[in-house]
Amino acid sequence: MDIGFLGGTGSEARGLALRFALAGARVILGSRSAAMGAAAAEACRDTAGVPTIHGTDNANMIRDSELIFLTVPFGAAIDAVRTSLPLLKPHHILVDVTVPLNFTMGRVEYLDQEGFSNSEIIDRNLPKEIPLVGAFKTIPAAILADLKSELNCSVFLCGNSREAKTKVANAASMIPTLHAVDCGGLETARTLERMTALAIALNRRYKRHGARFRVVGLDGETAK
Amino acid sequence: MDIGFLGGTGSEARGLALRFALAGARVILGSRSAAMGAAAAEACRDTAGVPTIHGTDNANMIRDSELIFLTVPFGAAIDAVRTSLPLLKPHHILVDVTVPLNFTMGRVEYLDQEGFSNSEIIDRNLPKEIPLVGAFKTIPAAILADLKSELNCSVFLCGNSREAKTKVANAASMIPTLHAVDCGGLETARTLERMTALAIALNRRYKRHGARFRVVGLDGETAK
Repeated sequence: MDIGFLGGTGSEARGLALRFALAGARVILGSRSAAMGAAAAEACRDTAGVPTIHGTDNANMIRDSELIFLTVPFGAAIDAVRTSLPLLKPHHILVDVTVPLNFTMGRVEYLDQEGFSNSEIIDRNLPKEIPLVGAFKTIPAAILADLKSELNCSVFLCGNSREAKTKVANAASMIPTLHAVDCGGLETARTLERMTALAIALNRRYKRHGARFRVVGLDGETAK
Repeated sequence: MDIGFLGGTGSEARGLALRFALAGARVILGSRSAAMGAAAAEACRDTAGVPTIHGTDNANMIRDSELIFLTVPFGAAIDAVRTSLPLLKPHHILVDVTVPLNFTMGRVEYLDQEGFSNSEIIDRNLPKEIPLVGAFKTIPAAILADLKSELNCSVFLCGNSREAKTKVANAASMIPTLHAVDCGGLETARTLERMTALAIALNRRYKRHGARFRVVGLDGETAK
């Protein structure tokens, strides 16, 4: 299963691509220009030391990928999805990692969009047969790219297609010490996106870069 | 520092009282009737095997406590606070553990209150000199009362008084394997309350009773 990135030149795409490639997946970084995608992929290959990270334009990436991560800035996601619509087929699964945040005066603020999550808003622009899964929202790009650090955290998934969530969970579970948690329907992204804002605020308050969440108590490990 | 519970006969109060008493604190369970408070305390003493859990009416509890936990049902919190107002003094700190949830058709749903958290709504009913700290919202009563289980999780604090948060954090830190995390101002309760709904939903989906959250990465423990 090939894993593609729409907006593959940003830091979240880079971190995820490194982790997935090191876990054995074939990764494709898409960009508006094939040359920029190729350059980002070359830099990732140098860092990861594995040959399975490729770069190209978004159209070629979509054609060759099954999971397509939306790793554009949150405000650009709808345009990116609309532009991609003619290329999307029912075997594709979109994975939305975006989070609507405002950074003002050195503070991070969750941008409330009339009560709806960014995942729900993006999903409105998709035909029913293309499933969207909200995932990886709460894992900081900095810790993904810090390959010396184990992730040791949960990856929270939400979405309205159980089958699509299972595929994303299986992909996520390739990455060591990452624990996939099914959080329910897409509306749960309202919670997950706010948790991202909290993690970023914690990083600032505690002067760290890798604050993230782990669910305790799901595996009969309560006494551990 | 004595720890009181306004609405001390419910399950969240019971779980917290057991953990605090076992950690060495003196605990007072308040109830509308002194007899019911005393009965709840006797049951807790029997379970915990320590003599430092007392029960009385709410007025006596408030007089003798410094930290006062609001452990009434979320919809009853404002009335409970208003009734208590004549007794509250500036040395008191209210700790709000309430979460506005709807249980319908076997599902849990966060009850959005025009975008505001229950903590913020309660706080509007308090004079400025009485600080309110949102805390312990995400830790299930069932795991608190399950004394064989280590908590091994974070307790998330939010509030607008740094001094009050420090006192609540210090009290929380008496409980083994519980890690206090300062999440910022009271508005962060919007996130924390939704996280509670998520934890309850996870318990239902995974057939567990103790799903809770731990922040990873705040203590330079990222490589662990």
